[in-house]
Amino acid sequence: MDTLFASASRKIPRTGKRRICFPITSRAYYGRSQLLIKKLHHHPAVELELMLGGSILLDKYSRHVADDIEAGGFTISASLFNVIEGGNHVTMAKTACLTALEFTNGFHAIDPDIVVICGDRFEQLAIAMAAAYLNKTIAHIEGGDVSGSIDESVRHAITKLAHVHFVTNDDAQRRVLAMGEDPKYVFNTGSLDVELAARVDTALTSEQVNGYGVGHDIDLSRPFLMVIQHPVTTEPDNRRHLETTLRAVGATGMQTIWFWPNPDAGTGEMAETIRHFREHHEAAAERMRFITNVPVQEFVAMLKMTACLVGNSSAGIKECAYLGTPVVDIGGRQRGRLVADNVVRVDYDAAAIRSAVDRQVRHGRYPASHLYYRPDASDQIADRLAHVELYTQKRFFDAATVRT
Amino acid sequence: MDTLFASASRKIPRTGKRRICFPITSRAYYGRSQLLIKKLHHHPAVELELMLGGSILLDKYSRHVADDIEAGGFTISASLFNVIEGGNHVTMAKTACLTALEFTNGFHAIDPDIVVICGDRFEQLAIAMAAAYLNKTIAHIEGGDVSGSIDESVRHAITKLAHVHFVTNDDAQRRVLAMGEDPKYVFNTGSLDVELAARVDTALTSEQVNGYGVGHDIDLSRPFLMVIQHPVTTEPDNRRHLETTLRAVGATGMQTIWFWPNPDAGTGEMAETIRHFREHHEAAAERMRFITNVPVQEFVAMLKMTACLVGNSSAGIKECAYLGTPVVDIGGRQRGRLVADNVVRVDYDAAAIRSAVDRQVRHGRYPASHLYYRPDASDQIADRLAHVELYTQKRFFDAATVRT
Amino acid sequence: MDTLFASASRKIPRTGKRRICFPITSRAYYGRSQLLIKKLHHHPAVELELMLGGSILLDKYSRHVADDIEAGGFTISASLFNVIEGGNHVTMAKTACLTALEFTNGFHAIDPDIVVICGDRFEQLAIAMAAAYLNKTIAHIEGGDVSGSIDESVRHAITKLAHVHFVTNDDAQRRVLAMGEDPKYVFNTGSLDVELAARVDTALTSEQVNGYGVGHDIDLSRPFLMVIQHPVTTEPDNRRHLETTLRAVGATGMQTIWFWPNPDAGTGEMAETIRHFREHHEAAAERMRFITNVPVQEFVAMLKMTACLVGNSSAGIKECAYLGTPVVDIGGRQRGRLVADNVVRVDYDAAAIRSAVDRQVRHGRYPASHLYYRPDASDQIADRLAHVELYTQKRFFDAATVRT
Amino acid sequence: MDTLFASASRKIPRTGKRRICFPITSRAYYGRSQLLIKKLHHHPAVELELMLGGSILLDKYSRHVADDIEAGGFTISASLFNVIEGGNHVTMAKTACLTALEFTNGFHAIDPDIVVICGDRFEQLAIAMAAAYLNKTIAHIEGGDVSGSIDESVRHAITKLAHVHFVTNDDAQRRVLAMGEDPKYVFNTGSLDVELAARVDTALTSEQVNGYGVGHDIDLSRPFLMVIQHPVTTEPDNRRHLETTLRAVGATGMQTIWFWPNPDAGTGEMAETIRHFREHHEAAAERMRFITNVPVQEFVAMLKMTACLVGNSSAGIKECAYLGTPVVDIGGRQRGRLVADNVVRVDYDAAAIRSAVDRQVRHGRYPASHLYYRPDASDQIADRLAHVELYTQKRFFDAATVRT
Repeated sequence: MDTLFASASRKIPRTGKRRICFPITSRAYYGRSQLLIKKLHHHPAVELELMLGGSILLDKYSRHVADDIEAGGFTISASLFNVIEGGNHVTMAKTACLTALEFTNGFHAIDPDIVVICGDRFEQLAIAMAAAYLNKTIAHIEGGDVSGSIDESVRHAITKLAHVHFVTNDDAQRRVLAMGEDPKYVFNTGSLDVELAARVDTALTSEQVNGYGVGHDIDLSRPFLMVIQHPVTTEPDNRRHLETTLRAVGATGMQTIWFWPNPDAGTGEMAETIRHFREHHEAAAERMRFITNVPVQEFVAMLKMTACLVGNSSAGIKECAYLGTPVVDIGGRQRGRLVADNVVRVDYDAAAIRSAVDRQVRHGRYPASHLYYRPDASDQIADRLAHVELYTQKRFFDAATVRT
Repeated sequence: MDTLFASASRKIPRTGKRRICFPITSRAYYGRSQLLIKKLHHHPAVELELMLGGSILLDKYSRHVADDIEAGGFTISASLFNVIEGGNHVTMAKTACLTALEFTNGFHAIDPDIVVICGDRFEQLAIAMAAAYLNKTIAHIEGGDVSGSIDESVRHAITKLAHVHFVTNDDAQRRVLAMGEDPKYVFNTGSLDVELAARVDTALTSEQVNGYGVGHDIDLSRPFLMVIQHPVTTEPDNRRHLETTLRAVGATGMQTIWFWPNPDAGTGEMAETIRHFREHHEAAAERMRFITNVPVQEFVAMLKMTACLVGNSSAGIKECAYLGTPVVDIGGRQRGRLVADNVVRVDYDAAAIRSAVDRQVRHGRYPASHLYYRPDASDQIADRLAHVELYTQKRFFDAATVRT
Repeated sequence: MDTLFASASRKIPRTGKRRICFPITSRAYYGRSQLLIKKLHHHPAVELELMLGGSILLDKYSRHVADDIEAGGFTISASLFNVIEGGNHVTMAKTACLTALEFTNGFHAIDPDIVVICGDRFEQLAIAMAAAYLNKTIAHIEGGDVSGSIDESVRHAITKLAHVHFVTNDDAQRRVLAMGEDPKYVFNTGSLDVELAARVDTALTSEQVNGYGVGHDIDLSRPFLMVIQHPVTTEPDNRRHLETTLRAVGATGMQTIWFWPNPDAGTGEMAETIRHFREHHEAAAERMRFITNVPVQEFVAMLKMTACLVGNSSAGIKECAYLGTPVVDIGGRQRGRLVADNVVRVDYDAAAIRSAVDRQVRHGRYPASHLYYRPDASDQIADRLAHVELYTQKRFFDAATVRT
Repeated sequence: MDTLFASASRKIPRTGKRRICFPITSRAYYGRSQLLIKKLHHHPAVELELMLGGSILLDKYSRHVADDIEAGGFTISASLFNVIEGGNHVTMAKTACLTALEFTNGFHAIDPDIVVICGDRFEQLAIAMAAAYLNKTIAHIEGGDVSGSIDESVRHAITKLAHVHFVTNDDAQRRVLAMGEDPKYVFNTGSLDVELAARVDTALTSEQVNGYGVGHDIDLSRPFLMVIQHPVTTEPDNRRHLETTLRAVGATGMQTIWFWPNPDAGTGEMAETIRHFREHHEAAAERMRFITNVPVQEFVAMLKMTACLVGNSSAGIKECAYLGTPVVDIGGRQRGRLVADNVVRVDYDAAAIRSAVDRQVRHGRYPASHLYYRPDASDQIADRLAHVELYTQKRFFDAATVRT
């Protein structure tokens, strides 16, 4: 039945190469995957098909992604609008479902050998589920980490649907194995983000920074903070938590580049909180610049220069470990991750945050940690995707079996 | 935003009881859960809301379920048609997505404290995902088992989304813990199916059996085989595997009650295979009766009487262990499950199947095994659902931590 | 925004020809459109893209359609499974919505100049709506007719979304103009079905007929009836109406080829009614053969041979007018259509049906009517699709304006 | 099948009153329908069920709607998030489909006697289609008008699905009849918007106005313009058309209240155009205030005070006819509507717009026209909805038949 009309349809003709389908649903994932995408695109044994959906199609800052894709000559097999408006839990769940429904049609038309799932965003689990039901081999990048928010559940559920695992650190590898994955298919390649960060040597000027976003001008020749605080979808108090950080950071008296939160559930009220703060704490807000997005190269350059990164971004745990940037990690979102010395953890407590920031600024930069770093992550992943033996029937691999 | 219109809407008013939402998408799950459903319905601390979707709404044999529900006075909060026709992998994936999308609206309206996910059917993972994104506490029944088919991936992925786990045996418990679940929330209560089977003492007549399905009359006073062979969604050769079993069973010369396969991907070609066999192997088919469905009580009565159960049903592993029914388990679908002495495993090989059946018929019934049995599974689950502490933020529980 | 990623995507490259997209969702529509499809495929100014969805992908009798498509070298741009199971009003509505949602993605990728909507099936309105919202020029075939069932609403609503109209008869043309369509874009080309019927000169043998379906053998050398009675979605008593016809036809004592009803809302209970009749009226049923489907050529050959067509099929009104086949048209489904002398209309009344059938059988064949016939329908439609001026902004064309 | 589980489900119990379901998907429709909603709510023979979906759930200015609904004690049967982000044609089409799919579930649960469809927004056609397929009687308010944009197609297609018609003027009545609707069910009740406008005697202060939106302060004691220019979904040049109006209005030198366009396809680029203008034409922009939304009472008060309404809003045609407000109607969106003397029509031409505005400002207010006005529109509609005979099978009513 499945193939009744297949012979006559505009299926993509098979070339003998391994066909690898890479669903990309956020600009952030595109950013961190760009080395890998380029390598897959040029790999002689691989035919790469990008599928775009979700927020990447909606993001006005995605212009450079579009330019990149055109310049790179990548093939986009499908562009699917499937974000349901609302920024709440209901629309997050429904967006995941609609995304997966539409990607199913895409997978059916493309018929890939491997579907690459990157990270732990909510729609990636839905896409992984669809790919699994279509009997595709699934490769997962960045499994086995521990964090807070719904990402924690999403990440491990993807692991249990995936067949090939590229983890970024030893702890993650241990956990993926504990969860019953076959050691033959679990590879610690280090983090793609960190590989990219390690290669960036872009210089950054104040003019560039002040060309983005709204608010006060930043003078890069003087110390500045960076803040990235995303909503934690499993917590009810995102607004209050953000206010706490706003107050604590405001109290430091330092100039600050503040990144708007991710468009996840809770984002609406967080944006409102920031707007409210800007109106009611003018003095503090006058030292702040609010930025939505910058190209990944400039983002890394900022991380290299900032006196301290504050908030709950994974960049604090991974890129900053390698770059030696001092980090104040707030609340539960990154709780449980393997961290290097550069990270100080605090609760949602204004005094604690402020004192931790002060301490980190005084401490200055840390030596580079290789917790999440391998020099050749993208090469390793590309090669394994091109040559790893494919299978679809999973089987829980008992750790006991490993030991014998 | 989420609650802008909430106050004025026809939300179900909260009663102070814990609201437990039980999505039911197949008659089989209703069957095995009926003791639990009754106990939750009568539990003083619980408000039970059944949500119906998927194949249970399409199944003409669900009449007795409807009668049951009416007689029981259960509340059905939503009835959602969401099965996409086709019986192939594409429609299976899309059905899962549509089901979850619609159940999201249901969860939003019902606002349950707990969502109960039962088993490992493909749509249950999608529903669990939706519930997780809505920040509901998820209870999972029957996690930690190992099997073949896509169920293997589905089951463990649900475990990684769920907060409270009711497993049916020691092996499963060990695996759920290995996967990083918190021991405080993992309960080995035994199997609901087996509890139900243990309580059945329905007598069964040949007339009853011959009132179901099509084909040859069965004489229960003489030895008979039962066959249940479902498609394995991750295998390409379901048709050939079924033919093999048809030939092997036909060659035994014994009368046989053959159950039609599940409506999963692959079911279309399996039904066709059976039809083809009936036409082209008339002699063998004349000893066979083909049945779609019988009420669970009569099904258990048959298991108690049959000379041997052949195929790949989980009933062979679980109910038959307790009932002492000889079982020939074919192929990979139940591979890896903890089995009692009553099970002989064979490959998709006609000679091996036939010889195993002969051996099992000669052996006769086995002593009852308690591998999957606890006398009070439904009570235990109902009580824990009523009183277990609720949480939503999951955190990988390192086995190492357990040991310290 | 719409085009952010367009340049790099696997859009179908434009050839300078007019790109015409033809969504096909049922085998019946494929059947009646096959002459047109071939002509569009070979037209030098046209690039034809078939899009398949709905029941045509599910229909096991669509094998010959698939063969045709392959033999014809047609391009299938999308194959979309979107039929929601259930056969009731809820699933009919949801199927329409899902179909349109998925075809939207298809139209976006294909970017056609014209979308051709054929007839009045429920999903065609949804597809037309999607095409209209995408600002495509819509051509509608078979508008302006009057009938019963939901088709009546669907057909006229499509007219009000369409830009170019190909009607099959003078009455239809008058109505489409009354509804405010621009006379410049309303063409009476006659019916494609009738054009096809007029070209068929296939001989038909009893062996062929008896190779289809189940039931009693038909002897084509003796007079036989044909019955086609579809459910009327806007009526509650489809089951009783069908029973009435079964009784009336059974009472004639004539051998009968009975076609199963369409898979629309109401079809489930109608199929059950037929099954019930076969069991409880064995004598009558023994003169009946129940057939799901035959290729269109053989269907026309049957229409040419039958003593009388009974039921509510549009074939009785259109093809039979030209072929001169006596018809007993029952109930409201075709009420209001322009009919030739070959049609006798009766209500849901067994006595009336039987007496009308007797009268028609005695009368024998009628002279050919050209009410719905033009010899070159497919050529005319293909040429106009290739060359008609395209527009998208509709404007109600007041009949008053016409007259001045 | 449809009713297998119906008896036991949480269906809304029937009260003997006529159950009327009112889907509301935009704040604008809520605004203009509020008199009718109140009357239906208090009508002794009616049980009113509001269903909310689409943009009304997303609109931060809907707070007063929520308050209203709570204060009014209205019942909201469903709140469904179904707007797909993107603001382009693809997302518009998909939003319509998803909305209708979800409303189908709502209609199935609510089982209304009548579904009220208001106006001509794209999602309303999809909802009407779903209601028609569920065999509900559909009442349509504001059919028969003529305009540009996709609304023109949407409005007439809804007419062909609807059973009862409430039109606002004689021209509309004539057209609805020409389209084959039964005169027994076509009622010219005048416009609800105009009835509401006629009742407003709210005073408006500059402070109130300047509390909304961004930009320059408006001094209501001096002459001011209002501009409302929505995208026309069937035209490609919305950006240029808006720029033309911006330049023309800027050139008048008058202070201006500018309303942001509707969130339809094209809205993104229009918002960007306005932002661009504000940055690059500071002098002109300094006389402008940009407002998203005001309560309907204040909106009407503005219409009563403005020197001229410029753009393509239907308020210029309807409310302003009664209020005597001078209007410059630009482009094709309202083309073909019956207009009173207060409207001057111009093309997308800056010089023509500016000179028309100058002329209208000099002319001053017009006498009230009753083209769209009846004093009791909401009473009439409520009463007819409560008592009109219900039917579902439509039948084209030939004008010829009327005349005999």
